[in-house]
Amino acid sequence: MKVHNFNAGPSVLPNEVLYKASKALIDFEGSGMSILEIGHRTEPFIAVMDEARNLVRELMQLDDDFEVLFLHGGATTQFMQVPMNLLESSETAAYVDTGVWSNKAIKEAKVFGYVDVVASSKESNYNHIPKQFTIPPQASYLHITTNNTIYGTQWHMTPVTDVPLVADMSSDIMSRSMDFNKYSLIYAGVQKNMGAAGATMVAVRKSILGKVSSRKIPGIMDYRNHIENGSMLNTPPVFAVYISMLTLRWLKEQGGIPAIEKINDKKAALLYDEIDHNPLFRGTVVKEDRSKMNACFIMDKPEMEEEFLKFCKKEDIVGIKGHRLSGGFRVSMYNALPYESVEVMVEAMKYFSLKKA
Amino acid sequence: MKVHNFNAGPSVLPNEVLYKASKALIDFEGSGMSILEIGHRTEPFIAVMDEARNLVRELMQLDDDFEVLFLHGGATTQFMQVPMNLLESSETAAYVDTGVWSNKAIKEAKVFGYVDVVASSKESNYNHIPKQFTIPPQASYLHITTNNTIYGTQWHMTPVTDVPLVADMSSDIMSRSMDFNKYSLIYAGVQKNMGAAGATMVAVRKSILGKVSSRKIPGIMDYRNHIENGSMLNTPPVFAVYISMLTLRWLKEQGGIPAIEKINDKKAALLYDEIDHNPLFRGTVVKEDRSKMNACFIMDKPEMEEEFLKFCKKEDIVGIKGHRLSGGFRVSMYNALPYESVEVMVEAMKYFSLKKA
Repeated sequence: MKVHNFNAGPSVLPNEVLYKASKALIDFEGSGMSILEIGHRTEPFIAVMDEARNLVRELMQLDDDFEVLFLHGGATTQFMQVPMNLLESSETAAYVDTGVWSNKAIKEAKVFGYVDVVASSKESNYNHIPKQFTIPPQASYLHITTNNTIYGTQWHMTPVTDVPLVADMSSDIMSRSMDFNKYSLIYAGVQKNMGAAGATMVAVRKSILGKVSSRKIPGIMDYRNHIENGSMLNTPPVFAVYISMLTLRWLKEQGGIPAIEKINDKKAALLYDEIDHNPLFRGTVVKEDRSKMNACFIMDKPEMEEEFLKFCKKEDIVGIKGHRLSGGFRVSMYNALPYESVEVMVEAMKYFSLKKA
Repeated sequence: MKVHNFNAGPSVLPNEVLYKASKALIDFEGSGMSILEIGHRTEPFIAVMDEARNLVRELMQLDDDFEVLFLHGGATTQFMQVPMNLLESSETAAYVDTGVWSNKAIKEAKVFGYVDVVASSKESNYNHIPKQFTIPPQASYLHITTNNTIYGTQWHMTPVTDVPLVADMSSDIMSRSMDFNKYSLIYAGVQKNMGAAGATMVAVRKSILGKVSSRKIPGIMDYRNHIENGSMLNTPPVFAVYISMLTLRWLKEQGGIPAIEKINDKKAALLYDEIDHNPLFRGTVVKEDRSKMNACFIMDKPEMEEEFLKFCKKEDIVGIKGHRLSGGFRVSMYNALPYESVEVMVEAMKYFSLKKA
């Protein structure tokens, strides 16, 4: 029995990834050892790490200036590591504030230098992506959060700027075609679209590193050390990297990002169409900025929400309660979520609505 | 088929942990979801995290001033995080240098303040633990590495000092009874005696925190934030924490640290006895400082080493090649390594020796 898993992250993974990993937990490729028991400096694991890094490069079509790393620490550690490596203590980085995650990034950057919040949608409870803003030409970089899980917003354009562009893509990485080469540093906790909690993917241009002179960077935080050591500066999160490799392999077999994007578009269209036509529900986000990963909506009669949640639970629908900051519902539709699960969700909305009519 | 796994880490785990985890990868406690697919803020996972933290407290018999955390980043991140939280930029921390890992810790501490290396066994290639040294009474803390995997040395006493004692116990945590309450901060990458790569255990006294005023500590690096958030400041390495919980549960079922220590003593005695009596082999470490976790030894005729390695491989003995800095062999005997594996190892040494006689 498999539920319909709309969790915001950690979230649904492809069945074949789980089955393969489950077997590798007992015996990894006939080694007589579990994937958890093999040395990380042995050939079989180096092959896993290299394949994971190469699949990121290939699927995102990154140019040669990029290096791909799998690190510990989650995107939250990147909130600190990015300014530590890129922001002089006397200089200013530009950040766009699109919610909780942007704010955490801003807070950590202020530990290291100055921050200019060039735009914010805070006043409207982050229901849209700010589009009119000026980026100071002397900014060390511009930081954006491409998808905002809590509010259900997503950048559908890339800011045009001459300063290095840095993006937290934790919740929509690998879900849609983008010109990733417009960015200078991309990071993502892998636990949504490219694996399970415990690893963080960083794609960084070598050419932007080594320019900060106002502080000593601890060895473990310096991207250059990780690059030099093939993403194995210390014992990597072996199993999390293995799951990422399997998930990326699965994505490639599906046809890569363009193919999964088509399915993601179909899933989002199906759900938003129901939200827009069902009289009981209402989307909370400005239409043009709706996220295709996380759809946030409420009920016109909030007192019905509890009942709808219970109804969904009986249908094996899991993880749709909205974040406490947004209320209502949040339906996450990451790459591994089957189209059929969205159909079940929409059927539940339709049926509940008829029952109440 | 299961090999005899003497890997230095990641390393052997209890079979029942692997089987349980393998099942949870498909369906976690009847949830219809994999352990990789559940939300980390859901009750079932909070229960896992709490049980893991409580088991550490119980097994190590930590007093109430201690808080137990499971963090990202490996012990290498602690090399940075410890001085960041405990060392004023104008003050000095004392470190004992017992090899590569101590040195890495020393290097990171120097980013934040001054370091006084109060003792070192470097001149004898780290073949012993220094015992005669003075700890400056004004040192912010004294840092030791209780077990040194590369050289096969181990502290068999605890330094007596009034300054806070900090220890990297990555490679012998949970393997022997100690008065852990003599320490102020204990950290360990969990991938040797308490789980798989991807999580780091930190046990820290609340009373030593919050005293550094010469720097801003990034939010993700401040132990107090992790304590306040129940070790869930950000998405934790869910699966690695789960594996730790299962491994600690297994240890408790074995009778806890005193029971496993007896077995570890027996395993070490069996192997070192063979090293000392077999004419082909010779231990590299001063006897009184030998590690019960990692036995390092060489052959009197180095040209035979390759042949012995090949012979062992045929006997399904894995992971005994010494670190390049020590040469020869390193046989790691962590908690989960069965006594029978050491018997097989010793038999191989005996048989090889007879063949060569």
